[in-house]
Amino acid sequence: MPVRYELLAKSGNARRGRLHTPHGVVETPAFMPVGTAGSVKALTARDLTELGAEMILGNTYHLFLRPGSELVRELGGLHRFTSWEGAMLTDSGGFQVFSLADRRRIREEGVEFQSHLDGKKLFFTPEKVMEIEMALGADVIMAFDECPPALADRAYHEASMARTTRWAERCRAVWREDSGTSLFGIVQGGPWEDLRRRHVEEICALDLPGYALGGYAVGEPPEKMHQGVAFSAPLLPADQPRYLMGVGTLDDLVHGVAAGVDLFDCVLPTRCARNALVFTRAGEGRMNLKNARFARDNRPVDEKCGCYACRTVSRAYLRHLFVARELTAYTLSTQHNLWTYLRLMRDVREAIAADRFAAFAREFFGSRAPAADSGG
Amino acid sequence: MPVRYELLAKSGNARRGRLHTPHGVVETPAFMPVGTAGSVKALTARDLTELGAEMILGNTYHLFLRPGSELVRELGGLHRFTSWEGAMLTDSGGFQVFSLADRRRIREEGVEFQSHLDGKKLFFTPEKVMEIEMALGADVIMAFDECPPALADRAYHEASMARTTRWAERCRAVWREDSGTSLFGIVQGGPWEDLRRRHVEEICALDLPGYALGGYAVGEPPEKMHQGVAFSAPLLPADQPRYLMGVGTLDDLVHGVAAGVDLFDCVLPTRCARNALVFTRAGEGRMNLKNARFARDNRPVDEKCGCYACRTVSRAYLRHLFVARELTAYTLSTQHNLWTYLRLMRDVREAIAADRFAAFAREFFGSRAPAADSGG
Repeated sequence: MPVRYELLAKSGNARRGRLHTPHGVVETPAFMPVGTAGSVKALTARDLTELGAEMILGNTYHLFLRPGSELVRELGGLHRFTSWEGAMLTDSGGFQVFSLADRRRIREEGVEFQSHLDGKKLFFTPEKVMEIEMALGADVIMAFDECPPALADRAYHEASMARTTRWAERCRAVWREDSGTSLFGIVQGGPWEDLRRRHVEEICALDLPGYALGGYAVGEPPEKMHQGVAFSAPLLPADQPRYLMGVGTLDDLVHGVAAGVDLFDCVLPTRCARNALVFTRAGEGRMNLKNARFARDNRPVDEKCGCYACRTVSRAYLRHLFVARELTAYTLSTQHNLWTYLRLMRDVREAIAADRFAAFAREFFGSRAPAADSGG
Repeated sequence: MPVRYELLAKSGNARRGRLHTPHGVVETPAFMPVGTAGSVKALTARDLTELGAEMILGNTYHLFLRPGSELVRELGGLHRFTSWEGAMLTDSGGFQVFSLADRRRIREEGVEFQSHLDGKKLFFTPEKVMEIEMALGADVIMAFDECPPALADRAYHEASMARTTRWAERCRAVWREDSGTSLFGIVQGGPWEDLRRRHVEEICALDLPGYALGGYAVGEPPEKMHQGVAFSAPLLPADQPRYLMGVGTLDDLVHGVAAGVDLFDCVLPTRCARNALVFTRAGEGRMNLKNARFARDNRPVDEKCGCYACRTVSRAYLRHLFVARELTAYTLSTQHNLWTYLRLMRDVREAIAADRFAAFAREFFGSRAPAADSGG
């Protein structure tokens, strides 16, 4: 059975809903932690449950290379393999093929590329990617698309978009509903509103269980991205889930929710955490815990935070763990950053349900220190 | 108040007891996980509590170098700093000075050495080490000793032992009971029974709250070590806790308990875990999870184990995490190995309480595959 979106309430364009999946209900708007290679780095599945995550993302490209999608299928699929009992989504591998792989060549048939691990020549077609994603067996699988480079011109975008439509049709043709997966289409079109509108029409004509916005947060200024999402998200079908891929900062999430987005994913909270960069909702915004000024700072990272790290240890202790490269540093900081993200989404959901999202967003942006948020 | 040992039961020489500390009761025989630099690598304090650890060890040498004992004192001591609420012990730094530091020079006054981190020249005296350990504020602190090289001859051992006695007297002189710490003395003497006997007399004459056996597991064959401990442990006062430093394998623990040891510590379960080497009580003994034969092995590491990893994930998943160098690998394997160690100690305590320790040990060694235990 495909996933099903249930709209519970609206507040402006912001949507409070539920995504019903074969692995439980995901309260939306939701943030999906990224578990690239079958684990959210430094955390266990139990940690994620305790943090309140309901859906996580796996990267098809990475899992295909290692341990291999056929091996995962043989061992019972991604849920069983990773012991994650909640909902899962796999991306299409497209973004990674274009950003990670060596020497790739795009043809109508698919993309030829070399593995970033061992240089092995590989060929991804829409059909091949569907086969891989169905073998992995996440609840939601993404169509194979091209995410054009940030600086590509309009002509490139138009041609790429048309090919992404043809690839989505080919994905649609081989995707089997009885695989337990739900196929989402991806809308591209870069910063051009008419292209976005045209691609929404093309992709939504495929009648899929959900749709995503791709090609945002690929290097453009945040305001441009927020404007683009504010334009594109409302074009997507109101009775289906809307997923903004690879976004973003806490601010980006609030902007995305305001535009009517239901699902988000981003490596930012987890990757930054491993580099000692922790986020707070208000006040300092971001802190680099390796900074010497934290050496004797006995306060928690965020006094208002309820995460395990903030309830038990100081900035000084975390700084020490980072300086000494102790593995526990990565666990604690990752827990903190994900808690901050997931807690924000919970508060967002409550604000929408109470139809006070605009006030929530004003208060949220008002409490931020914009300068502190712009860098480490 | 110093720690207090309560003897509950004996089975042969094996002792079932309780160590009463300012941070709770430690059921003995107990294994102390090693938290070298203020964390048991890859675990949180909560993980340790869940695993059933009641006492952990911190390394004075490492903590002195980073973050510094004065900083730890300023921030409330090691318990508050690390958020570990159970009992703690710090070693004396002696073993690390002799095994890690660069260019060390032993004098009667103390040891001159260079930090392995930055080459800085440092000087540890018994008085300095006491000052550091009291600043760190563990429940049990160890006297500063020399642990002679494995191949040192009898003459070297005698001279070193005599100096260690003088150093222990100097530690005794500056240790303050009102510091909240309890000073344990360390017995050396290498493989010579008469030296061990003499040193037990010298060190126990200091009337300290507890005593340790040092200089074992420094390179000698396991049988020699077991024999040595079986000789030395019963020489220690029966009404005080006995600690065998830096030991060992699961087999070593059972041998040590049989000799009448109450406390153990070793980096083996945690360090091996980070190298994909996991232990099981019976059957395979040790497994290197990176081995290709586990690639499609859907069984848990140990079917009889109740740890989180064994309850939820397969050898194939753990192998994948290790091959992909995912941080979660270290957390899961460390939890497994410590669970195995701590569970063994629980079973040992039950066997002693029921006065069936000899039968327990026979069964334990009978179920082991000695060949598999001898290497990776």
